[in-house]
Amino acid sequence: MSKIPVGVLGATGMVGQMYTSLLADHPWFEARYAAASPRSAGKTYAQAVEGRWHINRSAVSAAGWGEGVGGLIVEDANDVSKAIAAHKAGRCAFVFSALEMGKDEIRALEEAYAAAGIPVVSNASAHRWTADVPMLIAEVNPHHADLIPLQRKNRGWDKGFIAVKPNCSIQSYTTPLWALMQKGYGVKRLLVTTLQAVSGAGYPGVSSWDIIDNIVPYIGGEEEKSEQEPLKIFGEINGGGVLVNAAEPKISAHCNRVPVRDGHIACVSMEFGVKKPSIDEVKKIWSEFRALPQEAQLPSAPERPVIVREEADRPQPRKDRDADKAMAVTVGRIRPCPVFDIRFVGLSHNTVRGAAGGGILNAELLKHKGYL
Amino acid sequence: MSKIPVGVLGATGMVGQMYTSLLADHPWFEARYAAASPRSAGKTYAQAVEGRWHINRSAVSAAGWGEGVGGLIVEDANDVSKAIAAHKAGRCAFVFSALEMGKDEIRALEEAYAAAGIPVVSNASAHRWTADVPMLIAEVNPHHADLIPLQRKNRGWDKGFIAVKPNCSIQSYTTPLWALMQKGYGVKRLLVTTLQAVSGAGYPGVSSWDIIDNIVPYIGGEEEKSEQEPLKIFGEINGGGVLVNAAEPKISAHCNRVPVRDGHIACVSMEFGVKKPSIDEVKKIWSEFRALPQEAQLPSAPERPVIVREEADRPQPRKDRDADKAMAVTVGRIRPCPVFDIRFVGLSHNTVRGAAGGGILNAELLKHKGYL
Amino acid sequence: MSKIPVGVLGATGMVGQMYTSLLADHPWFEARYAAASPRSAGKTYAQAVEGRWHINRSAVSAAGWGEGVGGLIVEDANDVSKAIAAHKAGRCAFVFSALEMGKDEIRALEEAYAAAGIPVVSNASAHRWTADVPMLIAEVNPHHADLIPLQRKNRGWDKGFIAVKPNCSIQSYTTPLWALMQKGYGVKRLLVTTLQAVSGAGYPGVSSWDIIDNIVPYIGGEEEKSEQEPLKIFGEINGGGVLVNAAEPKISAHCNRVPVRDGHIACVSMEFGVKKPSIDEVKKIWSEFRALPQEAQLPSAPERPVIVREEADRPQPRKDRDADKAMAVTVGRIRPCPVFDIRFVGLSHNTVRGAAGGGILNAELLKHKGYL
Amino acid sequence: MSKIPVGVLGATGMVGQMYTSLLADHPWFEARYAAASPRSAGKTYAQAVEGRWHINRSAVSAAGWGEGVGGLIVEDANDVSKAIAAHKAGRCAFVFSALEMGKDEIRALEEAYAAAGIPVVSNASAHRWTADVPMLIAEVNPHHADLIPLQRKNRGWDKGFIAVKPNCSIQSYTTPLWALMQKGYGVKRLLVTTLQAVSGAGYPGVSSWDIIDNIVPYIGGEEEKSEQEPLKIFGEINGGGVLVNAAEPKISAHCNRVPVRDGHIACVSMEFGVKKPSIDEVKKIWSEFRALPQEAQLPSAPERPVIVREEADRPQPRKDRDADKAMAVTVGRIRPCPVFDIRFVGLSHNTVRGAAGGGILNAELLKHKGYL
Repeated sequence: MSKIPVGVLGATGMVGQMYTSLLADHPWFEARYAAASPRSAGKTYAQAVEGRWHINRSAVSAAGWGEGVGGLIVEDANDVSKAIAAHKAGRCAFVFSALEMGKDEIRALEEAYAAAGIPVVSNASAHRWTADVPMLIAEVNPHHADLIPLQRKNRGWDKGFIAVKPNCSIQSYTTPLWALMQKGYGVKRLLVTTLQAVSGAGYPGVSSWDIIDNIVPYIGGEEEKSEQEPLKIFGEINGGGVLVNAAEPKISAHCNRVPVRDGHIACVSMEFGVKKPSIDEVKKIWSEFRALPQEAQLPSAPERPVIVREEADRPQPRKDRDADKAMAVTVGRIRPCPVFDIRFVGLSHNTVRGAAGGGILNAELLKHKGYL
Repeated sequence: MSKIPVGVLGATGMVGQMYTSLLADHPWFEARYAAASPRSAGKTYAQAVEGRWHINRSAVSAAGWGEGVGGLIVEDANDVSKAIAAHKAGRCAFVFSALEMGKDEIRALEEAYAAAGIPVVSNASAHRWTADVPMLIAEVNPHHADLIPLQRKNRGWDKGFIAVKPNCSIQSYTTPLWALMQKGYGVKRLLVTTLQAVSGAGYPGVSSWDIIDNIVPYIGGEEEKSEQEPLKIFGEINGGGVLVNAAEPKISAHCNRVPVRDGHIACVSMEFGVKKPSIDEVKKIWSEFRALPQEAQLPSAPERPVIVREEADRPQPRKDRDADKAMAVTVGRIRPCPVFDIRFVGLSHNTVRGAAGGGILNAELLKHKGYL
Repeated sequence: MSKIPVGVLGATGMVGQMYTSLLADHPWFEARYAAASPRSAGKTYAQAVEGRWHINRSAVSAAGWGEGVGGLIVEDANDVSKAIAAHKAGRCAFVFSALEMGKDEIRALEEAYAAAGIPVVSNASAHRWTADVPMLIAEVNPHHADLIPLQRKNRGWDKGFIAVKPNCSIQSYTTPLWALMQKGYGVKRLLVTTLQAVSGAGYPGVSSWDIIDNIVPYIGGEEEKSEQEPLKIFGEINGGGVLVNAAEPKISAHCNRVPVRDGHIACVSMEFGVKKPSIDEVKKIWSEFRALPQEAQLPSAPERPVIVREEADRPQPRKDRDADKAMAVTVGRIRPCPVFDIRFVGLSHNTVRGAAGGGILNAELLKHKGYL
Repeated sequence: MSKIPVGVLGATGMVGQMYTSLLADHPWFEARYAAASPRSAGKTYAQAVEGRWHINRSAVSAAGWGEGVGGLIVEDANDVSKAIAAHKAGRCAFVFSALEMGKDEIRALEEAYAAAGIPVVSNASAHRWTADVPMLIAEVNPHHADLIPLQRKNRGWDKGFIAVKPNCSIQSYTTPLWALMQKGYGVKRLLVTTLQAVSGAGYPGVSSWDIIDNIVPYIGGEEEKSEQEPLKIFGEINGGGVLVNAAEPKISAHCNRVPVRDGHIACVSMEFGVKKPSIDEVKKIWSEFRALPQEAQLPSAPERPVIVREEADRPQPRKDRDADKAMAVTVGRIRPCPVFDIRFVGLSHNTVRGAAGGGILNAELLKHKGYL
């Protein structure tokens, strides 16, 4: 089977580079179109990222980012006509959006691509709260993909659409919560403190002066996202095809930036409803959790979405962030909470599972469901 | 006034060095006796710490650790007779204990010093839960010093006694809690996640291999201490002179080791009882909080025990740990909690306020109260 | 004596903040004028640096940056007329330049201040190679200050002038070399490898992504400066009053950026001429070295410009950078070199001795010599 | 072909773990015997390393350390009889030595294994200067393996022998030097400053307190090794079959410990003899360099032993240490030296190329040559 040609918007940034890295080895998709800021336009991709290539390729991909991508001429991401031409020429069936610009600009630009018939699988936060845009974690709410027909109808779009993924900070606890909810253990309240890696701020992102021998106990906008996005993801599509957000859990998030390169830690305390699982049940549910990506054997799906570690001091970013192609959530320290019911530590790789890898898995899901 | 001669047990370790550093400039006390492991015994203090002097003296003390201390002959801390001789010779009125050995050994050894008539102001955890031993934070429970007569009576000790300080991890939130409790705002439940510096583990402590580009979400025994010690500190002495621990707040602590040299961060969510303060009241109470050490103008007392920062991203270890001679607790990000009532971030310097500086302040308090 | 009012250009940057911090306690000078980019103009200094105050004040100054400076209205540094007005109003006798802009712009702007009668004591590199501008290390070439009359004559300036300081990277070896040269031990060739702290790049400077768990073995332009600037500093003023650069030592510098906040390390191998000192002579010469700033007891002068450490593993940035108000160079590991003659490790604090502190010491020297 | 069963001595340490990790996927060898300190003896390997497994397996090996190794019962490395039994039982054809104990003990123990007929491929420094023991870098001096018959004869050993590898610090420059020497460009003098990762000190190794925000400009014994070991490696076997060390280059090494996990940087200045290459020739020679491991296609051999990077700021530990299975040396910044002739920066992975990977490649070489 020949591969599906795809585009990457914002291809030269931290997450964009992770996209082209991961796509270099991808069995279904192939990066054939790259767009970025006007400053990069006209250069080859190799030239555009020279001196600011951030990914340790050997960590994620044996093949490197490859000759093919390196030789692409980067286009101006603001110029949708270039993408339309590539689309017509069979070089860009859909795009991944890792755009880094103002929220309003991204919102408008992603809509322009979709309106032109080019589906947008996005990492950006611009459309996360747009009612008819699904915010997908492939293992949690794959059925939200079915908002796409409504979205197309609402906007008069024929083939284009927009699907987004949530913020990187919520990956370390949202899937574990969902696994418990699926077994009838509803979580009413949640207190989470995150310890987030610097790559989450992009590049150049956090100044070394601010973070060597230091913690910054604040990340602008991150706590609000961490508290609210799970409610849309846990939402249900009602009879009218409209997504109704979940009312629970009530979440309080405290987000810290720490001197770690990759991997977001979440220290979580959960209060369940009337039905409360035992520690052993929680471990069993998480260890056994499988979802559509696993069943459909989507190529980027981790074998086990949630890996349970029994050691006293795990998960750790350095040791666990790359688990199962950096696509698994690793959990540990599952123990009783003196204030709520059960507490644990979760970890996921923020630029793979929490960004480009999660986006690619979403695209695989959408392909599997026939939307791509 | 000539200075009171004091001894330091465990003088060559991380905390012991901080003791001798801080005492170098002290207006009341002077280190005249140093004891450590048999390996160091017989060397001068300067020789014993050569090549493993850990304190950046200029950060804490303009005077350095001084010729006087450097020239002391280190004694074997296990050999109490040496201390007794020094005590009789007027070179050791009391001792600070920064012993690093097994808990049972420390417990027995501290009792031996006290039985010999040498008061012990200790950093060790060995006697924290001994019922008649006060566990003091000078601004919070100075009245617990009045357990000392009972302690002496219980044990038949004449002049010796043992007073301890709590674990370094609780300094960042216990004093702020107390200030609120004093104003009638009882805290019922508390969820705290700490981000603790490597100096808290002593020296060599945490391996660099474990912590560069990493977080270790576990510190053995630390969560139990963080949850339970405040209850003794908040306890009241009943009519019979016996200390009764507080029943609240119920605390859940999650303790992480982070790649920071000094300064423990605490991310805290508080649930109050019926009477709930506003954000502004909390800020006002903390800003205005003063206690016995301030009123008595004890030399190591910070001017303000709790410093409130209004910036969005403070406190930070690097910027705030040295506030007010590294003896203040700095708090910030005081804001509503979606799950409990109010949340904040606290910070204190773990080897100064949380260890040697806190111990010295306790000694100043005990002197002020006439026990030394 | 009332203090001399001074201005700081580029007052909101990393080095500018160090200037206002150090001046807060200065016995001779007082910051009464602050200028920065148009973005900061019109705000109070406290507002302009809010949320980006970088200096750990307690590490350098007990007084903090003070109410006085905090309340100053920041002016646009490009608008010399504002400085002229302040100069006339007795609020700006001279300026420290910590400007961060293009080299040509700085060169022109510093000349404009000087032409207006306002002496400029600069940290910028723009005028380092201007023939009649002295590049001063107060302990090494204080006599170069006597280029100022020539400079004024050349340019038709009455009271203004420009004096600069060299790059931070050369502080760790230039003064030690000079001390040896003064004793007749000329250094012919020098190989130096520097390990430079991130603060040398200003703020935000080095991205945390580039430096956590990493070394960057390159700093643009730094090796050229490290190789050439000592030759001007070691130069002599000939009979015609013109500065003639030294021909030796020939220097090869390799500059690395390392994950350290402050303090530049230099690993140095020296080849002497015919006259070669012994290791002991080198230690003695360095330990005993004193120069004009020490003799004149300039307030920022370190007591010993070069501190010799005998421990096997010193100097270290964390332990030695703050030595003698962060104004001393600390050297250690003085030992034979199998290839050249003698090798050693030098260290100095790059933003104090190597930047603001060195600039202030230069101003003290210029005041002492009657140029200010 | 069934795999050759091998043993690992010191299997639970930092380097020992790297051995078992790398062997998990090895096409020729299979770890069937593991020995360590008496403390680990009797446990399964999985139990012995529990809670102190250091290797981020996914970085080096897709297979992990595998069920087979994990289930091995660890023996006491001091008890050679256990290895002899395993040897006879076909579970230990030869051993890799990653022993961590006193030099004299290691020397004696390795001899005991060899005397018992079990070849020893060692990482330890104990036998590096034993005259008839080859110190091998597979690409540089594979012909030194031919000291083995002499060694056996000298000692009356039948099948056993000892072969060692050099110190990790020299890997980043020795192979590049050799490539130039092979083309007739002899290097007379060399000044090298290394920036070495913490993993080079083993585990727990460097205290985090010593290295966060710090550099330690000293590593005990490392400079001597860095200066002298290349001379044995560059030596020639004379007519009498005896190895005669090279007289040149004369090397001066300055070794620093830096806050980096893996990867040793070397900043090198080279002085050639009469025949001096151009920069372009150096690049060409290094890019084209291939040696016996490449020609024989040994499984652990990097495709290119020396990778030349043209970017201004490479090599960097984080970006280049894993190049070609972490077995290549990456060089960059090849440029003229103002003092010597040419300078460059070299980098290699110290625990793979510089330790376990280098040892395995040596074993492959010895197998290829018929000694195993």
